[in-house]
Amino acid sequence: MTTQDRLIESTRTLLWERGYVGTSPKAIQQLAGVGQGSMYHHFTGKPDLALAAITRTAEERRAQAEAQLGGPGTAVERITAYLRREREVLRGCPVGRLTQDPDVMADPALRRPVEQMFAWLRERLAGILAEGLTAGELRPVLDPAATAATVVATLQGGYVLARAAAATGPFDQAIDGLLGLLTAAATSAPGSAA
Amino acid sequence: MTTQDRLIESTRTLLWERGYVGTSPKAIQQLAGVGQGSMYHHFTGKPDLALAAITRTAEERRAQAEAQLGGPGTAVERITAYLRREREVLRGCPVGRLTQDPDVMADPALRRPVEQMFAWLRERLAGILAEGLTAGELRPVLDPAATAATVVATLQGGYVLARAAAATGPFDQAIDGLLGLLTAAATSAPGSAA
Repeated sequence: MTTQDRLIESTRTLLWERGYVGTSPKAIQQLAGVGQGSMYHHFTGKPDLALAAITRTAEERRAQAEAQLGGPGTAVERITAYLRREREVLRGCPVGRLTQDPDVMADPALRRPVEQMFAWLRERLAGILAEGLTAGELRPVLDPAATAATVVATLQGGYVLARAAAATGPFDQAIDGLLGLLTAAATSAPGSAA
Repeated sequence: MTTQDRLIESTRTLLWERGYVGTSPKAIQQLAGVGQGSMYHHFTGKPDLALAAITRTAEERRAQAEAQLGGPGTAVERITAYLRREREVLRGCPVGRLTQDPDVMADPALRRPVEQMFAWLRERLAGILAEGLTAGELRPVLDPAATAATVVATLQGGYVLARAAAATGPFDQAIDGLLGLLTAAATSAPGSAA
């Protein structure tokens, strides 16, 4: 890893473990094994480092989602693959958790990658759902954009329920329930939609 | 308000604004206008105060939910009334947010009221959905417990999406999408379920 990469990865770790307020430039340098001069050579300061760290986390989640969403299969199959992929449920979503960090949310530059990741995900899912509607796989009563927001919300809220219970069961139930609703909204035979 | 109430309300405010780690016994006393001796007369310390504060918050949310869930109407009508009730969306859910407070989640006594509130809510919703299934209002393909988890997750995740966007729109969309799915799962005429 380059010095710059080590600094970004250290910032990601500290943001995750201690939040923005608990992440000091000194701690970043120590964890990265990088001196102060070198850090300020690469980054203007903590906000700049945090932006690079948050942007990288958001891009990783986006790539992870695309792995299933861009895969083969029908709309419901791709969404199912995405919802069912292995996750560290009790740790939660590293992007979603940033919405609970008041310092990150208060800074428009730091909030932007979080907002953009969720906007991208909702749009991607809405596009897939729209394909499913066009293909007659889903009944035309569903609104793709609203349904896409429900899919993302169920995941994010599933993490909340799992953390509350200190168990993954409620997350799995929320996903099961969503897939049950999507199945109920599916047409019995593709192409048969009115 | 009694001295005890003032201490609990001050603890709730501070937990909300600063989290567990940022809530000091001294700050609680100052905000409540209560001396140290009086505080320790009523509570054994910060964990005891936090437990009383979290329990009260959880009970309030439960009573708020019951106001709609225990109201008149069909299963879908009552769930719709609950989902559509006025909320301070950008502030988020005071109980859900506690799941992101590492000190609260690490203490089983402090986590318990959070877990119990969500367990109660899921069970209450599952009961209502089961009524809807029995009445033939919903198609029998739905699993009441799983669908109930999806309803609670959509709300909690809706807050996450709204905070990420600094706008209530994504929350409203997630609710719209969920109600669209529930409508799609409804039987066209009550009593006609196979």
